[in-house]
Amino acid sequence: MISVSILDIVKAYSRIKPYIMKTPLIYSSAASLDSGCEVWFKMESLQVTGSFKIRGALNNILLLDDKELERGVLAVSSGNHAQAVAYAARLRNSTALLCVPESSPMTKREGILRYGGQLEVCGATYDLAEARARQIEQESGRKNIHGYESSETIAGQGTAMLEALLQKCDFDAVLVPTGGGGLLCGTAIAAKAINPEIKVYGLQTDTSPPWEKSFHQKKLDFGCEFKPTCADGLEGPITWPNVELALTCVEDIMIVGETSTRSGIKWMGEKHHYMIEGASATCLAALFENRSFFKGRKVLCMITGSNIDLSSFCSIVNNDT
Amino acid sequence: MISVSILDIVKAYSRIKPYIMKTPLIYSSAASLDSGCEVWFKMESLQVTGSFKIRGALNNILLLDDKELERGVLAVSSGNHAQAVAYAARLRNSTALLCVPESSPMTKREGILRYGGQLEVCGATYDLAEARARQIEQESGRKNIHGYESSETIAGQGTAMLEALLQKCDFDAVLVPTGGGGLLCGTAIAAKAINPEIKVYGLQTDTSPPWEKSFHQKKLDFGCEFKPTCADGLEGPITWPNVELALTCVEDIMIVGETSTRSGIKWMGEKHHYMIEGASATCLAALFENRSFFKGRKVLCMITGSNIDLSSFCSIVNNDT
Repeated sequence: MISVSILDIVKAYSRIKPYIMKTPLIYSSAASLDSGCEVWFKMESLQVTGSFKIRGALNNILLLDDKELERGVLAVSSGNHAQAVAYAARLRNSTALLCVPESSPMTKREGILRYGGQLEVCGATYDLAEARARQIEQESGRKNIHGYESSETIAGQGTAMLEALLQKCDFDAVLVPTGGGGLLCGTAIAAKAINPEIKVYGLQTDTSPPWEKSFHQKKLDFGCEFKPTCADGLEGPITWPNVELALTCVEDIMIVGETSTRSGIKWMGEKHHYMIEGASATCLAALFENRSFFKGRKVLCMITGSNIDLSSFCSIVNNDT
Repeated sequence: MISVSILDIVKAYSRIKPYIMKTPLIYSSAASLDSGCEVWFKMESLQVTGSFKIRGALNNILLLDDKELERGVLAVSSGNHAQAVAYAARLRNSTALLCVPESSPMTKREGILRYGGQLEVCGATYDLAEARARQIEQESGRKNIHGYESSETIAGQGTAMLEALLQKCDFDAVLVPTGGGGLLCGTAIAAKAINPEIKVYGLQTDTSPPWEKSFHQKKLDFGCEFKPTCADGLEGPITWPNVELALTCVEDIMIVGETSTRSGIKWMGEKHHYMIEGASATCLAALFENRSFFKGRKVLCMITGSNIDLSSFCSIVNNDT
């Protein structure tokens, strides 16, 4: 079983802190008014590379030795982890090869190139990109920096929650947009260690909900149906180790509607003038779909990223698609 | 002549600091790449109430005595100063009446109401709103918190530059979107006091350029033509005291195109996923219109606010209007 402690998260934080932004923790009077609970946003959407993923990527890449750096690194990702790995690799004068599926938004691909990464678009699904990455890993000797299933990655992602808790530690609930579950596990480990009263919820859309059955049945479910989603950052398969870890520290998985998620993107643009990507908007969907459940509670929303194509953003705003 | 010193700015900073956000200072690799200079953004668009205006409003309202607070305050503004005054007044359990012209965006009006302010829409132009405010001031005894022409306001706005300089002090140039000139003068006073090498430029659009002739001819010009602009925050008349003060510390006024300003809004959404209002986008217009002038220099852009209607934002992105 993967093992990550609060000490690992604290060590990760002191390692990556010089290179990341201490992102704002914002009280949202607008969200509080519209949801009936007390809402806070941890603005990882403003983080270096536009998402929390830089935390895990840096925690891995700062630990590499000279030989590993010389051979370079590799990652498979729908785009945010890939941008983060490209950025972190350049910081250490290494090179990064990034495998993304065709669903990866243009703005994430452009980011990868701007940060000096080599981009390879590897077929329609995340699975195909992963298969290609394994092949490259064997051929090139590049180190694969895993996007969610490794102790270093989970410890790195947990630093976002640690940072939030150091500013305010009395949340009742934390909402965590969940793809592979690296941020979910890191957040829950930090929360349980510092204030066990805090309940951590993983969020997925009804168009891509592989966590739901696996978590509730306590075994990996392979029957999940995937449909197109605006939350591209949460797409993709999951693996047993993170589910197993989540079962020890996460309160529950919540499934939110694809439509509510799109409304969440629009709400955030209208009320806060923040452009956020679909993954982040699952937090607003969860708040507005579960008003009575969260009523009166102090809820922290992990606003995970801002990397959405401007054209997609305006299409969603105008209900064009 | 209005007198504001670096000591006034430092005092203002210690006064308002507990209530404001220390906004991020961000190096933009995208803007640096596209402009050929080294570009930094001071993200006042993320400030409490969505603009730098809270700094000046708080510096005024934290100085009021109990009697003044009981009578309440008053402000005239295209919307950002009004939101800031409403927010600051509520913080001190006072009341605020806000006079805005019809051109004030809906999102700014909604903000005023959300922060507990009383809103009065006072005719087509800023001048009419100002006339109405003077009338209310006499009738009600409410204290008029001036949006740009007062020592307290200028000192408050100067704290944004002070904050930026405490993080990085070797800029060659600072670009300041300019309406009444409170932020312009505050920024220039802070810059000159701490690093006189820094040159401060005020920016206006060619659709509303009252500063240009007044600054260059060193006397107030009344012949300026006003046309509709996406930079509503910079609209409105100017007065001699701030021009006189600017002549002692500001390097120059730059006029940028309305079209370039709209492109700047789109560029920021595309490359950084930030929604910014037209006033802020004059910085990008200035960078991209003056590539050879700024080439190789370290340029700080004051990203003054994010309060733009979502529908206007998407219209500008889609070149609909």
